[in-house]
Amino acid sequence: MSSTEGKTITCKAAVAWEAGKPLSIETVEVAPPKEGEVRIKILYSGICHTDDYTLSGKDPEGAFPVILGHEGGGIVESVGAGVTDVKVGDHVVPLYTAECKQCKFCLSGKTNLCGAVRATQGKGVMPDGTSRFTCKGKPLFHFMGTSTFSQYTVVSKYSVVAVDPKASLEKACLLGCGITTGYGAATKTPGIEKSNVAVFGIGCVGLSVIQGARAKEATRIFAIDTNPKKKEWAEKFGATDFINPLDLPKGQSVVDYLIEKTDGGLDFTFDCTGNVQVMRQALESCHKGWGVCNIIGVAPAGAEIATRPFQLVTGRVWKGSAFGGVKGRTELPGLVGDYLDGKLWVDQFVTHHETLDNINKGFDDMHSGDCIRCVLDMQDQ
Amino acid sequence: MSSTEGKTITCKAAVAWEAGKPLSIETVEVAPPKEGEVRIKILYSGICHTDDYTLSGKDPEGAFPVILGHEGGGIVESVGAGVTDVKVGDHVVPLYTAECKQCKFCLSGKTNLCGAVRATQGKGVMPDGTSRFTCKGKPLFHFMGTSTFSQYTVVSKYSVVAVDPKASLEKACLLGCGITTGYGAATKTPGIEKSNVAVFGIGCVGLSVIQGARAKEATRIFAIDTNPKKKEWAEKFGATDFINPLDLPKGQSVVDYLIEKTDGGLDFTFDCTGNVQVMRQALESCHKGWGVCNIIGVAPAGAEIATRPFQLVTGRVWKGSAFGGVKGRTELPGLVGDYLDGKLWVDQFVTHHETLDNINKGFDDMHSGDCIRCVLDMQDQ
Repeated sequence: MSSTEGKTITCKAAVAWEAGKPLSIETVEVAPPKEGEVRIKILYSGICHTDDYTLSGKDPEGAFPVILGHEGGGIVESVGAGVTDVKVGDHVVPLYTAECKQCKFCLSGKTNLCGAVRATQGKGVMPDGTSRFTCKGKPLFHFMGTSTFSQYTVVSKYSVVAVDPKASLEKACLLGCGITTGYGAATKTPGIEKSNVAVFGIGCVGLSVIQGARAKEATRIFAIDTNPKKKEWAEKFGATDFINPLDLPKGQSVVDYLIEKTDGGLDFTFDCTGNVQVMRQALESCHKGWGVCNIIGVAPAGAEIATRPFQLVTGRVWKGSAFGGVKGRTELPGLVGDYLDGKLWVDQFVTHHETLDNINKGFDDMHSGDCIRCVLDMQDQ
Repeated sequence: MSSTEGKTITCKAAVAWEAGKPLSIETVEVAPPKEGEVRIKILYSGICHTDDYTLSGKDPEGAFPVILGHEGGGIVESVGAGVTDVKVGDHVVPLYTAECKQCKFCLSGKTNLCGAVRATQGKGVMPDGTSRFTCKGKPLFHFMGTSTFSQYTVVSKYSVVAVDPKASLEKACLLGCGITTGYGAATKTPGIEKSNVAVFGIGCVGLSVIQGARAKEATRIFAIDTNPKKKEWAEKFGATDFINPLDLPKGQSVVDYLIEKTDGGLDFTFDCTGNVQVMRQALESCHKGWGVCNIIGVAPAGAEIATRPFQLVTGRVWKGSAFGGVKGRTELPGLVGDYLDGKLWVDQFVTHHETLDNINKGFDDMHSGDCIRCVLDMQDQ
């Protein structure tokens, strides 16, 4: 039993008081976990574009004040009643895509989406409708059921998984979002072996798609990005071709180019940009008759994708995935195993480090163009 | 050997001289089949909305003057060199979706689209780039590789299939488009057994989807149409529920209604309307995590479908199919067999009959709202 069990913990967190403002490092109170909840000491947290998107105020569901962060790694500090799958001292990764193993979705065998905590998670509170965070006497909202930009956080027992303690949490935290989202989307795509693949947007997610496609022995992997610095990254991870749409001959679209280069189009495409125009390109560069476009990126609120229905009637498929289609509690330990076995690159994604105190610098890093992932060291030095 | 073999045949046909005008019954000359071609005496032809669409002038690829019609049944009159799969006297159905069994598409095992005659078919000519039809000294364009609104037509050997002569061609002609398009789309959908299905648009195609879903033992089949007369039809073919969107309480969309009635949405939806707004409804009434929307209807030129990408990221799939995903030469004989065995309803679709001379009345019939299919008797009485 830890000395803090059952007590409120006072620690540091990055608080987003309002949209569009820098984060504030504050002293916050983190209440003990209630029944079915887990309190985690967060050691590391990646910074992801989704954090930035909500902070910007463009997310219509974003509620403030809030503690952001959803790509974390930590150690269980204490658990509430009824928690049996993780225990104090376990190394864990919080899961923004929960897995209860008993709802209609979990039992369907068709999806990794889980209905157990969805409604309250979307409202920024715990399943009982309240928050575990307060700051200056005010409750703070949770974010994506994880809120990893705090030195301690509380999550549902359905939103956390124990991982092999041999894995460095400084790296494994990235399996909480970006790497799993891309790698899962590729490796869970039936038929990707011996196929032609195109990946639009070469950040952490796009590189992970490339890595997954390479692991599955895709024949040719096109990487597409307007940032020329991404060429080296894409090739390092296994892309066979890099295309900068800005470098194409005037009048030639990336769709035309890809269809020409592949004798009819791609077998599989992945949008990792969140740009709805690119999502259309990703669909329309698919091969007639069988090409499948998987949308992974998160679009701005209200933005819509469009195409002519003839694109679908002639055999292209438009689908999407969240968290790579991966069931977190069931499958994440296997990915950590692949990381420890050297089959799954993770270390290579970390280009920047910051401390919690410098979290706003971390957001600047992310926008710099030569950043794949910035990892925050969450504990005081 | 028939007395007409190798000779030009003079016969009657309905000619579309220009867009937006009624068809003219004309005397036309039909040249003998060249190598790899088949000349067919057409006995019956259904009238389909796609004929009407091209006649309206809204089809940007529609070329005039042309002989329309693509849902026919007839008897082989003669064959060109190199034709071995059909012979003089065979009962046949022309196929607007060809099947060569040797192109990239046919060999893929993933699609029923065939590349063999696509380019020339789209231009309204035979594979050698010329037409077999002339009228008043002018060449006429072919349509969809079939042109069944003529007493004789010429098609590629890849665009025709022999069927059991025990099947009445007056009925079996409908397997050349509408029935196969709907029935194939439903029966070729993996997992449709024990599922909830919604069908938007209850014409020949929609009823065929219902029939296919029933054959596959779907649990619940919703039929949606704004024409109240379609309720009886839908139920006759196996729908369990009929919804007229115009009858819903004010402010309740058909999407909201369906999601409520099915505890989250449909497992499979089919658009058989060609209306892009309905295509969106069909997608958005799919169940989160696994619902699949199949677009079958043909939209007006330039019309686009749209949705928020979140619909796809949360597990819905937007796809489409042409000719029900059926490979005509390989699979149509089996459907004819199912018809003869009483497993597949065909007779029930024929609500109207006209002679070739009265073809324009047949188009009026189609628009009347109580017509499922009008079949033309093509030969002189």
